[in-house]
Amino acid sequence: MARIVMKFGGTSMAGIERIRNVAARVKREVEAGHQVAVVVSAMAGETDRLVGFCREASSLYDPQEYDVVVSAGEQITSGLLAITLQAMGVPARSWLGWQLPIHTDTAFAKARIGEIDTAALDQSLAAGVVAVIPGFQGVAEGNRVTTLGRGGSDTSAVAVAAAMKAERCDIYTDVDGVYTTDPRIVPRARKLSKVTYEEMLELASVGAKVLQTRSVGLAMKEQVRVRVLSSFDDARDEDGYRGTLIVGEEEIDDMERQLITGIAHDKNEAKITLTAVPDRPGAVGSIFAPLADAGINVDMIVQNIAHSTGSTDVTFTVPSADLARCLDVLEKANGDIGYAKMVHDTRVAKISVVGVGMRSHAGVASTMFQTLGARGINILAITTSEIKVSVLIEEDYTELAVRVLHTAYGLDAEAA
Amino acid sequence: MARIVMKFGGTSMAGIERIRNVAARVKREVEAGHQVAVVVSAMAGETDRLVGFCREASSLYDPQEYDVVVSAGEQITSGLLAITLQAMGVPARSWLGWQLPIHTDTAFAKARIGEIDTAALDQSLAAGVVAVIPGFQGVAEGNRVTTLGRGGSDTSAVAVAAAMKAERCDIYTDVDGVYTTDPRIVPRARKLSKVTYEEMLELASVGAKVLQTRSVGLAMKEQVRVRVLSSFDDARDEDGYRGTLIVGEEEIDDMERQLITGIAHDKNEAKITLTAVPDRPGAVGSIFAPLADAGINVDMIVQNIAHSTGSTDVTFTVPSADLARCLDVLEKANGDIGYAKMVHDTRVAKISVVGVGMRSHAGVASTMFQTLGARGINILAITTSEIKVSVLIEEDYTELAVRVLHTAYGLDAEAA
Repeated sequence: MARIVMKFGGTSMAGIERIRNVAARVKREVEAGHQVAVVVSAMAGETDRLVGFCREASSLYDPQEYDVVVSAGEQITSGLLAITLQAMGVPARSWLGWQLPIHTDTAFAKARIGEIDTAALDQSLAAGVVAVIPGFQGVAEGNRVTTLGRGGSDTSAVAVAAAMKAERCDIYTDVDGVYTTDPRIVPRARKLSKVTYEEMLELASVGAKVLQTRSVGLAMKEQVRVRVLSSFDDARDEDGYRGTLIVGEEEIDDMERQLITGIAHDKNEAKITLTAVPDRPGAVGSIFAPLADAGINVDMIVQNIAHSTGSTDVTFTVPSADLARCLDVLEKANGDIGYAKMVHDTRVAKISVVGVGMRSHAGVASTMFQTLGARGINILAITTSEIKVSVLIEEDYTELAVRVLHTAYGLDAEAA
Repeated sequence: MARIVMKFGGTSMAGIERIRNVAARVKREVEAGHQVAVVVSAMAGETDRLVGFCREASSLYDPQEYDVVVSAGEQITSGLLAITLQAMGVPARSWLGWQLPIHTDTAFAKARIGEIDTAALDQSLAAGVVAVIPGFQGVAEGNRVTTLGRGGSDTSAVAVAAAMKAERCDIYTDVDGVYTTDPRIVPRARKLSKVTYEEMLELASVGAKVLQTRSVGLAMKEQVRVRVLSSFDDARDEDGYRGTLIVGEEEIDDMERQLITGIAHDKNEAKITLTAVPDRPGAVGSIFAPLADAGINVDMIVQNIAHSTGSTDVTFTVPSADLARCLDVLEKANGDIGYAKMVHDTRVAKISVVGVGMRSHAGVASTMFQTLGARGINILAITTSEIKVSVLIEEDYTELAVRVLHTAYGLDAEAA
């Protein structure tokens, strides 16, 4: 007997036929003797429909009322899954965010989960009743409905798993796990059986869109074992695993550990260069302080060697979506900064190699530079962390770079 | 300054354009200095969609979960109306059933409203904030969501009006009021400016489908002044009234009072005759007791004069929807009853003339019988109450009967 959380996304909940498939999977876990809580998304397309209504009503909609409207999608699917489970002979009931309750802060439309009361839930689970919990929603002080922001159902599932001390949080989705890289670029990409929280954070934030980043951070903090797997496909990999398990480093033994876990790419960054910035103390601060004030996240930063003239070029990247705002902020701030010219380029891509194994191995970065150099791919900027090396390259080379690196680090699956 | 409740049905809430029209009407009342609570239905078609999902999930769905699913429709429109009002500069917030709260009993899917807490609502209204309340929903002991049964939003509106001691409860709908009879049958039917609760109950229960019967009963009990009016048309009648006001008899002065208020018809009854029932004490009880046990409402009853043989024929009507079940019950009960034959007929219609004025006037019934007789319309059964005379006739004569009675009682509007 174990306690587990199962989470199903919008594609898995799109219509009663698919909800029956979900219920059948839940039933299997119940029959295996587990206590099960299920966290559900709205039917695919429903949240977009509801958000569309809010925007049509007012482009400046009140987030408190927006939350009332959009939380209805998950309310509907949780009731429907409870009905479907009961029809299959599985005792079940829904617990809405305010019923459990799932307490959040008052940041409406992008709330963060605080405490989850589990007294009633524990009792219900112990009585053998499956708990069906709408994802994405909670309740704030003053008894107002909140939602967690798009993709928040993953975070709901991890938070519920932490609160009920679940052995595992299974995230069912439309892919069968986390891959070494995007299989559309590298057909010989391999599904990973296990990946650490840290690696998953790096892979998610740089482009492997399987799990909401925030949910991975929460899982790491709360030490929740998360598994990503397909709700449509029961295939196991050669090691007998279904999906990909996301766990702490201590759960991955040395035999399983690879030097490099995966290669990610991200085309949604823009590069900005300020030329001839005066090379004096505080110059860099005068660039990045106004950007931080405007809520713009700067990612890679390269400061070139000072010119003999006492000035320097500064290059950095920001999300493409923030580019226009960023240029505007920097134009206004040029009185303080004093750059000569500002140039930008959106036709760039960030390629990252990720792996906890690189901590104990030198040479990961140099392999990357050599591999790219051998194909004539120019490196525009570099950043590194303990478990990641990222380079900025021209966008046209993205797929080539991912392929050659995937091979260079020995990640290619054996030919079938 | 007055407190008023405004209620808008599904047709009025179908899409953001129409919700803007609703918001404009609310804004007008706010600008007139009123404190306003608005009760809303789901968008037209939405409740059917949600009920359809529940039925598809299981024909024997759990009403507790059904309520979770179907209450989402009104949750959505209440948030959207609050957003739309705010966009027009009118302070507003939604109050879901569990937030107010609107307490109900635990008869899920057909709950009855108990107490409504108005402390928070009063404070909010006094602060000039319009309260937007989803109709049809409440919360029961154990913090579970309930709904009131189809059409329950009218009842929600009247209950909220009673709780907040509103001066008036305006029910906006797609017709402009209550008519002397169905205008599709009698083009010269007149809109009534005022009608009493009792008359409205008789008119509603016999076919004028403007307001849910239960809401009229509640309005009468709580002395809530209800007005039915169009959300699409601002026309006033010749007396300067918009819509139809439903009030206590004391609010209608003698000048305004008509002998007969309206003519209703109902084709949804079926007639059953049991022949040669033994004419002994308890015989009638042996017919109607098993029907009552089966929850079948018997409407008109006629017992003919006993035959010289010591037996009698008994004729009565039941809702057509219950006919099959009724025949089944009576067949099984014939051991106790001992009738010779059972015959039934669904091609009948009930025609009712309604009016509080008939209390003080003899001759209403005889006018009815004479008028119908002059056109060769045969009367199959009769029932009367203090303010109503109903006759059962062959269905084919329905429209003719309504027309000639409408003229006979002087209800025809003057030709335009």
